[in-house]
Amino acid sequence: MLSTLNHTSPCLSVVTKGALGASRNALAASLPRHFAGKASPSGGEWQTMDGCTAVCHVSYAMMETAYIYPITPSSPAAELAEQWSALGVKNVFGDIPKITQMQSEAGAAGALHGALAAGSLATTYTASQGLLLMVPNMYKIAGELLPCVMHVAARAVSGQALSIFGDHQDVMAVRQTGFAMIDADTVQECHDMALVSHLATLRARVPFVSFFDGFRLSHCIQKVDTLPYNQMRRMIDMKALNAHRARALNPTRPYVRGTNENPDVYFQQFEASNAFYDKTPQIVKEEMDRVGAVTGRHYDLFQWSGPKDAEAAIVILGSGGSVVEESLPYVNAQGKKVGVLKPRLYRPWSAEDFLKALPKSVKRIAVLDRTKEPGALGEPLYLDVASTIQESGRSNIKVIGGRWGLGQKEFTPKCVAAVADNLYAQYPKDHFSVGIEDDVTHRSLPLNDEINVSHPKTVECLIYGFGSDGTVGANKNATKIIGDNTDLFVQAYFAYSSQKSGGLTVSHLRFGPEPLKSYYSVSKADYVGCHNTTYIDMYRMTDHLKHNGTFCLNSPFTTVEEWNEHVPAGVRKALAEKNAKVFNVDAFKVSEKCGMGRMINVVMQAVFFKLANVMDFKECIALYKNTIRKSYGHRGEAVVQKNYEMIDEALDAITEIKVPADWKNLSDSMLRFEQNYHDALGNLAKEKSAINKPSFTENIQAPVALQRGDDIPVSAFANDELVGGKVPLGTAKVEKRGVALMIPIVDMDKCTQCNICSMSCPHACIRPFLLSQAEDDAKPSTFDSRKAKGGAEVAGLHYRIQVSPLDCTGCETCVNACPYDALRMEHLADFEDIESQTGSML
Amino acid sequence: MLSTLNHTSPCLSVVTKGALGASRNALAASLPRHFAGKASPSGGEWQTMDGCTAVCHVSYAMMETAYIYPITPSSPAAELAEQWSALGVKNVFGDIPKITQMQSEAGAAGALHGALAAGSLATTYTASQGLLLMVPNMYKIAGELLPCVMHVAARAVSGQALSIFGDHQDVMAVRQTGFAMIDADTVQECHDMALVSHLATLRARVPFVSFFDGFRLSHCIQKVDTLPYNQMRRMIDMKALNAHRARALNPTRPYVRGTNENPDVYFQQFEASNAFYDKTPQIVKEEMDRVGAVTGRHYDLFQWSGPKDAEAAIVILGSGGSVVEESLPYVNAQGKKVGVLKPRLYRPWSAEDFLKALPKSVKRIAVLDRTKEPGALGEPLYLDVASTIQESGRSNIKVIGGRWGLGQKEFTPKCVAAVADNLYAQYPKDHFSVGIEDDVTHRSLPLNDEINVSHPKTVECLIYGFGSDGTVGANKNATKIIGDNTDLFVQAYFAYSSQKSGGLTVSHLRFGPEPLKSYYSVSKADYVGCHNTTYIDMYRMTDHLKHNGTFCLNSPFTTVEEWNEHVPAGVRKALAEKNAKVFNVDAFKVSEKCGMGRMINVVMQAVFFKLANVMDFKECIALYKNTIRKSYGHRGEAVVQKNYEMIDEALDAITEIKVPADWKNLSDSMLRFEQNYHDALGNLAKEKSAINKPSFTENIQAPVALQRGDDIPVSAFANDELVGGKVPLGTAKVEKRGVALMIPIVDMDKCTQCNICSMSCPHACIRPFLLSQAEDDAKPSTFDSRKAKGGAEVAGLHYRIQVSPLDCTGCETCVNACPYDALRMEHLADFEDIESQTGSML
Repeated sequence: MLSTLNHTSPCLSVVTKGALGASRNALAASLPRHFAGKASPSGGEWQTMDGCTAVCHVSYAMMETAYIYPITPSSPAAELAEQWSALGVKNVFGDIPKITQMQSEAGAAGALHGALAAGSLATTYTASQGLLLMVPNMYKIAGELLPCVMHVAARAVSGQALSIFGDHQDVMAVRQTGFAMIDADTVQECHDMALVSHLATLRARVPFVSFFDGFRLSHCIQKVDTLPYNQMRRMIDMKALNAHRARALNPTRPYVRGTNENPDVYFQQFEASNAFYDKTPQIVKEEMDRVGAVTGRHYDLFQWSGPKDAEAAIVILGSGGSVVEESLPYVNAQGKKVGVLKPRLYRPWSAEDFLKALPKSVKRIAVLDRTKEPGALGEPLYLDVASTIQESGRSNIKVIGGRWGLGQKEFTPKCVAAVADNLYAQYPKDHFSVGIEDDVTHRSLPLNDEINVSHPKTVECLIYGFGSDGTVGANKNATKIIGDNTDLFVQAYFAYSSQKSGGLTVSHLRFGPEPLKSYYSVSKADYVGCHNTTYIDMYRMTDHLKHNGTFCLNSPFTTVEEWNEHVPAGVRKALAEKNAKVFNVDAFKVSEKCGMGRMINVVMQAVFFKLANVMDFKECIALYKNTIRKSYGHRGEAVVQKNYEMIDEALDAITEIKVPADWKNLSDSMLRFEQNYHDALGNLAKEKSAINKPSFTENIQAPVALQRGDDIPVSAFANDELVGGKVPLGTAKVEKRGVALMIPIVDMDKCTQCNICSMSCPHACIRPFLLSQAEDDAKPSTFDSRKAKGGAEVAGLHYRIQVSPLDCTGCETCVNACPYDALRMEHLADFEDIESQTGSML
Repeated sequence: MLSTLNHTSPCLSVVTKGALGASRNALAASLPRHFAGKASPSGGEWQTMDGCTAVCHVSYAMMETAYIYPITPSSPAAELAEQWSALGVKNVFGDIPKITQMQSEAGAAGALHGALAAGSLATTYTASQGLLLMVPNMYKIAGELLPCVMHVAARAVSGQALSIFGDHQDVMAVRQTGFAMIDADTVQECHDMALVSHLATLRARVPFVSFFDGFRLSHCIQKVDTLPYNQMRRMIDMKALNAHRARALNPTRPYVRGTNENPDVYFQQFEASNAFYDKTPQIVKEEMDRVGAVTGRHYDLFQWSGPKDAEAAIVILGSGGSVVEESLPYVNAQGKKVGVLKPRLYRPWSAEDFLKALPKSVKRIAVLDRTKEPGALGEPLYLDVASTIQESGRSNIKVIGGRWGLGQKEFTPKCVAAVADNLYAQYPKDHFSVGIEDDVTHRSLPLNDEINVSHPKTVECLIYGFGSDGTVGANKNATKIIGDNTDLFVQAYFAYSSQKSGGLTVSHLRFGPEPLKSYYSVSKADYVGCHNTTYIDMYRMTDHLKHNGTFCLNSPFTTVEEWNEHVPAGVRKALAEKNAKVFNVDAFKVSEKCGMGRMINVVMQAVFFKLANVMDFKECIALYKNTIRKSYGHRGEAVVQKNYEMIDEALDAITEIKVPADWKNLSDSMLRFEQNYHDALGNLAKEKSAINKPSFTENIQAPVALQRGDDIPVSAFANDELVGGKVPLGTAKVEKRGVALMIPIVDMDKCTQCNICSMSCPHACIRPFLLSQAEDDAKPSTFDSRKAKGGAEVAGLHYRIQVSPLDCTGCETCVNACPYDALRMEHLADFEDIESQTGSML
C-alpha cells in the first residue's frame, strides 16, 4: 500500500505533468501556487490559498477515500479533492485517493461509516444542513470508535431564513455525537488543525470534526505555510494506522457490528469507551507539539494571548478569536487588562487545561458564542465555561455570555471594544448580542465607531465589481502575484450579492508586513475601485475611503467637466473632503479596442497595480506579464502579446481627475438608486398594497439594496409582518436594479406577435403590450407599435413587445428564442435612454 | 370548521359505533377502556392505558393532521391515531384528523412543516434516529415560529449498538433546535404534559417537543385520568388558534418564506424572535395552572418534592424523577435531608424559576442525566444546572453530575440511595454513573442491596412467558380488569427478549392502594408465575420470589414425586427456604382438552386471578367471564361457553405442591441451561476459535442468556475484542435456546435427498448430513439414514436430513417447503429425547 515518496505536494505533481488540455487554466487557478517568498519554518512552501485549499492540501494527503456531497462553503475542498484525484495526484502513501460523490450528505456519511469499518482512511467535507444529515451516522462512527476526520466549513443553519454564511450553528448541533472537535482561527490553522486532527484521530480512535469558519476562513485567501507530503508522511503513527487496518471488518477477519443491545448491557458497553475520550486531549496535545516542532507554530488546547496579570478574559472560538487577539492591544492601551483564551480542542473539553491556561488574576470572563440556541440558558461554549468555573470553586469569577457573528454578521474591533467595556462595567450585561442593534429585547451591547487596529503599513483595498465581469478573478490573481512575490502578507475576501452573475461583487484586499488577523470587511480603504460606472449612482462608495485615499472609477468620463455632469454631487463632495486622489479609466474602451469585448479584468488589474501602490509597480507589471505568459502561452504568442498590449493600453488610459477645490462646497443629494427607492416608497404608499407595505421596503429592502443592511435594527423584523422569516410579495417591482449591460430591443417590422420572447423570459420582464388608440397617440415617438393581430378580440388596439430595462438581466434568452430575429441586444447609455425607450409604460 | 360537540372521547365514539367487523378485537385491545372506579377529579374518566395511548388521547383531540413514520417506542401512538382516523373518530373540533404515513421521518417532518405553514394543527410521533432525521426541519419550524407539538417517546440513539429502549439521547440531540421541551414523569403526565404542550404552543408560537420515557412510560399500563374532549375543547385559546390560521400561507394571503439572508440582516432577524421565547415559560405556567384547575393536578415549571429545609437536592428528568420521589422518604428516614427538583419545562430553561423552586437551604445538588455526551464536561442538564448556580452567585452550593438509565438500564431505589450517599460524602464523586459497575474508569457509584420502598399493601408479580403464548396479552387483560374494577392502582410493564416470538417475556405487574411510581422492574415478587416448563431448567426465577411468596409452574408435574424428579434441586431448595406456597397447573393439558391447542392464556389468567390474590377471587372471575362475553359474544354462545369451561377447568387443575421440609437440605447444582453454557465454554476452549473466544461467552453471552446481564461490569466490554460494539461470530452455536415447541422430523422413506428443506430454513438449522460407513455404523438406532444419491462423488456414503433441535424455532418453513411430505412436526418431551434423536451429530 505504501510506495516510495518522490513528491512533496499534489500541486508539484501536477505542475510537472505537463500539458493538461483545456482544463489547465481552471486547474491552475484552483491549485496552490509556489512563490519565491521567504522560506517556511517547516522547510515547506508558502502558498497563497484559501482555507478550503489548505484543508484539502492536508486531508488529501492523509486519506485513501472520501465520500462527498459538496455544500457551500465546504464545496471547494471537496471539488478540489475530486479534481486532484481525477488528475492522478497521489496522497502521502503514493496512492491516488478515490473520491465518490453520493446522492446526499446522509449517503456520504453512510458510505464513510462503511469505509471506516473496512479499515480505510476516509474523510468527507460538509457544512450546515449537510452536517445535520450526517448526525445519525456520526453517532455510529463515534460509538464504534472509528478514526476519521470530517472537515466542516462551519455555517449557519436554515431557520427563519437560509444563510450560506459562516457561524457555528452546524458544528454546535453535533457536539453531542461523540466526535472530538477542533477548530481553526486563521487560514493557516485550517491547514495546521486539519493535520493535528488527522494525526490525532488515528491514535485516539475518537473521530474528529475539524471545523473552520465558513467563508471568513474557507474562502479567505492568505499566505499559508504548507507542509510537504513527505514531511506529513513521517508524522503518521504507523503503529496506530496498522492497528486501525487490523481492526477492519473483512472476510478474513470477520466479526459482527451494529448489534441490538438490551437494557442489561447497553450502559456498560457505552461506558467502556470512556478511556478513549479521557486520553484524547493528551494525544491532541502531543500531536500539536509534534506539528509545532516541525513548523515552528506552537499550539495549546487552550491558547492564552494577553497580559499574564489580566483582570478579564474573552473566550471565543474560530476566526473571531483572531479578531479579538488583533484588537486587544488597542483595548488594553485604554487602561484595561483583557486577554483572550482560545479553545482549540472544543471536544473533549478539558476543564483542567482550561483552568491551567486561564491566568489566576482573571475575575471576569466573557464567553462569546457564534451560535444561538433559543430557549437555552446560554450558548454551548458559555455553558461549558460557566460550568467549568462553577466546578473549579473559583467563586470570585463572574462569567457572562454573548452571541456574535450569526450568519456571518461583521465582528470587528469595535465589537471587541464593546465586549471589553461590558466586562469592565459595574453591572455587565449577560446573554448579550454584539454586532447588531437590538432595540426590541435590548440584548445588544452599544457600539462605538469602528476602530482601525491594523498595522500602520497595511494597505487596504475595496473594489466594487459586476458579477461575471472578471473583477474577482483579477483580484485573486493580483493577490497571489503580490503574495507569492513579496514578503507582504496578503488577505483577499470576496463578498458576492445573492444575484450572483450580474450582482454586485466587493473585493476586500489587505496587504501588510505582519500576519493579517482582520477577519472582517474592509470598512475604510486606502484604495477604492469602482469597476462599473452605474455603481457611482447606486452606492456611497466614498463612505469607505480613507482620508487621502485613492479612488478609481471605470467610466467614459475622463475629464472634470464630464465628472461634473455625470458623477453625483455628493460623491464629488466626499472625494474633495477626503482629499482623495481620483482617477478614471475607460476600461470598456480599452478592452473593446483590444478585441476583448467587455472583459475588463486585465485592464483593471493593471490599473490596480499602478494605483494601489502595494508593491513596486514596474516589478509588478513584469510579474503580471509573466503570469499571463504562463497561463496563455500555450495558445500562442499572439494571444500573449494581445494581453501585453492591453496592459500597456490600460496604463495609458488612466486619467487623473484633479479634484476642484469647490467640490467641497457642493450640496449632497440623493443618488439615483436612493431616489429610486424614495420614489418607490411614495408609489407603494399610494397603492396601499396588501402584500407589500411601504414599511418593508423602507426599513429593509432599500437599506439592503443600498448596502446599508448592517445598520438595520432588530425592531425592523420584530413585527407580525416579518417575524419568523416572512417576506412580502411584490418587492421585485421596487428593486429595479438595472444590471443589464445590454437589453433586447424589438424590431416591430419583423415581429409576428407570437409572444414567444415573453414566454421564454426567466424573469418575466419582456412582455407584449396592448395600447388603446388614446394610449398609442400619447406614446413617445421611440415606442414603435403595430396594429394588434388576433381578430375581433383585439380590434382597434395597438401591439408592442417591450422589455422592462431595469428588471432585465441581459441574459439574451428572448433574443435566442425569437423565431424571426425580431429582437437584438443593445446598449443603453443611461437612465434617460431607458425612459425614452419605455415612456410611461413602466 | 367547528361542529357541535356531542362526544367526550374517541373511545366513546367508537364503542357506540357498534359492529366493527374483523378488527374489533384488535381495536378493543388498543382503545382505552372505561371503568366504574373512582370518579376522576376532572369529571373525566379513569382509564387503564399505556403512555402512548394517553399521548394519543390528547394529541388526537388537538390536531387536524399528523404525518407519521412509526418508530419504536412511539409507534403505538402513531398507529392508534391512524386507526382512530380510519374508524372516523373525531377530534375536539368534530373533524376527523387526517393521518398520513410518509417515506421516512425526514419526510414526515417536511410534510409537518408544510402543514403548519398552511395553518394546520399538525403533529407527529417519533423517537431516536427518527427524531434525528427531523432535525433540519425542526430548525425551520422553530425559526418560522410555527406552533406545533412533536410527541417523542424518548429513546437511546444507535452508537456502539442499537437500543430500542428508553433514555434521553434523542431528545437531548434536538435541544438546540429552538423547540420548547416538556417532559412527563409518569404515565398520567404523558397525558397532562401533552395537553399543556398543545395548549401552550398555540399561544407561544414556539413549537414543542413533548417527551416521555420510551417503554418505561410509553409502554407502561397504568390508570390514567383522561380529560373528556369537550373539556379540552373549552381550554383552547381560540384567539391564538385563529391567529395561527390567519398567518397561514395560502393563495388569498400570499407571502414569501424560506428566503436567503445575507450577513447584513440574518442576525437581527434571528434576534427578533427573542420575545417569543422570553414569554414561553409564563405561558406554560399559565396553561399548567389551567390544567390544574380542571384536573386537580397542579404542576410547576420546576417541581420540588421533599423537605423544605433540604440540605441536598437531586435534579432529574423523566420517569427517574418518580423513582427518586418514591425513594426519598426511605433515604431521608436514614437521617438525610434530600429533595428532588423535577424540571418539567426543560426548554426554554427558566433559571429564575429553577432558583425559586430550589430551597435556600440546599448546599449540594446532584444532577442526573439520562444521556451521555462523550467528550463534554458534563451532560446537558448538568451544564444547565451548574451554569444556573454559577450565575446565581450562590457559591456555597456544590453541583455534581451523573448518568443514569442509558438504554433503559434499571434505575431503582438502591440507585437513589447511592446518589444520596454520594451527596453526603466528604468528597462526592463527580461525573459518575449509577446503576452499573464501572470497574475500568471507576465512574460508577457503589450500590448496596435493593431496597423495597413500595407501599406495604402493594402486590408485585413476575410472570415468565413464552413469546406468542398469550401470556402478555392475558396479563394486560388482567391488569385492566383489576384496574377498571377496583380502587387499586395498577402498573404493568412487559419485557420482551429480542427474539420476540419464541423468546422470553417477563410481565412485571404491580397493584397497590396508592399511585405507583416504581418505574423499574419487579425484583422481588409476591407472585412468580412460570408459564413455560422448560424455563424451570433455564432461569433462577426463585431469586425474584419474596419470602412467603407464591410460585406457580405450568408443567405436567403435578405431584411432589414428579417435582423431585424433574424440578432442579436448587429451585426446590430455594422454594423451601423462602417458605413459598407452591402450585402447579398443567395448562397445556387444559387448553388442549378444551380444543385451544397450546394457547394457554385463558388458563393462566384464571390461575393468576386465583393465586395472586390481588382482588376478591370470585368477583374477579365473574368480571373476567363478562369480559370474555363482551369480546367473543359476537362469535356465538358456544365460543363463550368454551371459554367459561376452560376457566373452570383451569381452576380445577391447580394442584398445590406441599413443599417437603427436606428440600431445604438439598444441595444446589447447575440448571440445565447453566450446564449448557458451562459445557460450551469447555468446548470453545478446546476449539481455540479465532472468531469466538471463550471470554465473550463466559463474560457476556452466558450471563445475558441466563438473565444476569445486569450484573456484567464495564470491564467485560473494555477490551480490543469488544470495545466499539464489536461482537464475535459463531455465538449461535453456543446459544442452544431450545425454544421450539415442536421440531421437524424426517421420514427417510419419503426423502428424495433434494435438500430443499435445508435451503428454506431461515436459521440454517436443518441440514443434510453425509456419513461414512464407520459413522453410520456408530450412529444411534433412531438416526435413520439412506444410501447417498449423487453418483461417484458420494459413493459409499450415507445420507440423512437432520434438524438441530436446540437451534430450531419450530417455524415449520421446512415442512411446508418439502415437495414430498417427508417432514412432519413432532413434540420432543425433553433433552434426553433430543439427544437420542441427534446422537453425536451435534
